[in-house]
Amino acid sequence: MSEELGRATAVTKVGEGRYAATIAGDWDIGGNANGGYLIALAARAMVDATGRPPLSLTAHYLAPGRPGDATVEVDVLRAGRRTATAAARLLTADGSAAMALLGTFGDQTPGGPAVVDGAPPELPPYDECIRLEPPAVGSGFGQRVAVRQRPEDSGFREGQPSGVAEVRGWFRYPAEPSTTEPFDVFDLLLATDAFSPVCFNRPEFPVGWAPTLELTVHVRAMPAPGPLRCRFRSRFMQDGMFEEDGEVWDSTDRLVAQSRQLALIPRPGA
Amino acid sequence: MSEELGRATAVTKVGEGRYAATIAGDWDIGGNANGGYLIALAARAMVDATGRPPLSLTAHYLAPGRPGDATVEVDVLRAGRRTATAAARLLTADGSAAMALLGTFGDQTPGGPAVVDGAPPELPPYDECIRLEPPAVGSGFGQRVAVRQRPEDSGFREGQPSGVAEVRGWFRYPAEPSTTEPFDVFDLLLATDAFSPVCFNRPEFPVGWAPTLELTVHVRAMPAPGPLRCRFRSRFMQDGMFEEDGEVWDSTDRLVAQSRQLALIPRPGA
Repeated sequence: MSEELGRATAVTKVGEGRYAATIAGDWDIGGNANGGYLIALAARAMVDATGRPPLSLTAHYLAPGRPGDATVEVDVLRAGRRTATAAARLLTADGSAAMALLGTFGDQTPGGPAVVDGAPPELPPYDECIRLEPPAVGSGFGQRVAVRQRPEDSGFREGQPSGVAEVRGWFRYPAEPSTTEPFDVFDLLLATDAFSPVCFNRPEFPVGWAPTLELTVHVRAMPAPGPLRCRFRSRFMQDGMFEEDGEVWDSTDRLVAQSRQLALIPRPGA
Repeated sequence: MSEELGRATAVTKVGEGRYAATIAGDWDIGGNANGGYLIALAARAMVDATGRPPLSLTAHYLAPGRPGDATVEVDVLRAGRRTATAAARLLTADGSAAMALLGTFGDQTPGGPAVVDGAPPELPPYDECIRLEPPAVGSGFGQRVAVRQRPEDSGFREGQPSGVAEVRGWFRYPAEPSTTEPFDVFDLLLATDAFSPVCFNRPEFPVGWAPTLELTVHVRAMPAPGPLRCRFRSRFMQDGMFEEDGEVWDSTDRLVAQSRQLALIPRPGA
């Protein structure tokens, strides 16, 4: 976790299952906090309440995450020997819910046979990839992370979508030292919602945003130190919705997280 | 929804956000209710409370679903113009939670451009596929549904796993008339957890079960009448866990549901 992310997702227990937090003003995209950032913030409280890292965490995006005072309410539904399951709500200053979450938490148990059908995305060197600056990413979030996308996947910014519903790139933080620090589960949560929506690369969908309904992250391993490589793609874009499947790979070529989100493609009049 | 499924998932509102139900004794696998059946049951209450069908529904499996009296507690977290989000818990007779759920509900808005990278699985005719009888599926559940798997994907029963972490097959109900009825969202939820775990087809994992931690279903369209074709596969089986991705296709070759679950591969001593 970068120092900045640590500060911006800090939670303070103020009661049984109740945590005070602040939705930072500088993790925003156009004034509202990035969704992955909100998940990481809520997860800080859920991890504290369960005492374990997430294995599978689902978030439903209810309302924009406006900066300011916030509360995370956590309800531990079950705590067993290996895993614990908890629900949470992230409430903004006016008491309304910005996000609802449900997750199962537990420690990894590395080892045993492995069958892997996949590989990290092939990426040009970090410096040859495209850092999305405002307004393509916009505002504070683009400054807090140092996401760089493959040039071939980023032409939509100049009106040249690749034609393939895929986005690949590097996930790092801007401060050089942090890129050699071990990433943790909160970085993985953040990484799964930090890239451009893949629908931007299909000319059928000339949209400037694609609001997430729901995002589920499976944490599959603790990442080794070094930058993360990510791939996002969609296979089914229909009826104004698409799924976006994500893979996050660490510097040892190990899959460390999988994600899937269901998102809306805004349509006139829909 | 088959008449049997309708009866077995009936819920009665007994208070604000509180529904009485019965976990049927004859939808079991080895004495405990099938997970997809429990999701369908809880979803009946969530659909009643929100007044809309599910778009994305996540279930975390907390404890075996023992037959008997049950309660579904539903909390509608947000109800907007297009969608509503609700959390639920399925409690068994002793008051303990068997399942926790979180979903967003809303009506489909068909139309607009479609980009589909996929096709229904190629299946032999229904009669040439393998109906899993007890003990391979076991007990009541195998009688309530008429799932038939590709012969190539079912050799694990004779100790001949295919070597590919994939299972494909037909989903129907045993009563002939129902196979021409329109399936609904509850059938889709059921179908996503009705087939053999794909890890059975990898010789590295000589296990007889693979408990689900979490299952998320995206309902992508209302299915046309006729049998459903399903495909399940896994790409990342490591550290005692695997994801299983499902697709459900209707008789018009339309993707109607996607699913992903995170499941455990039991290991000695783990």
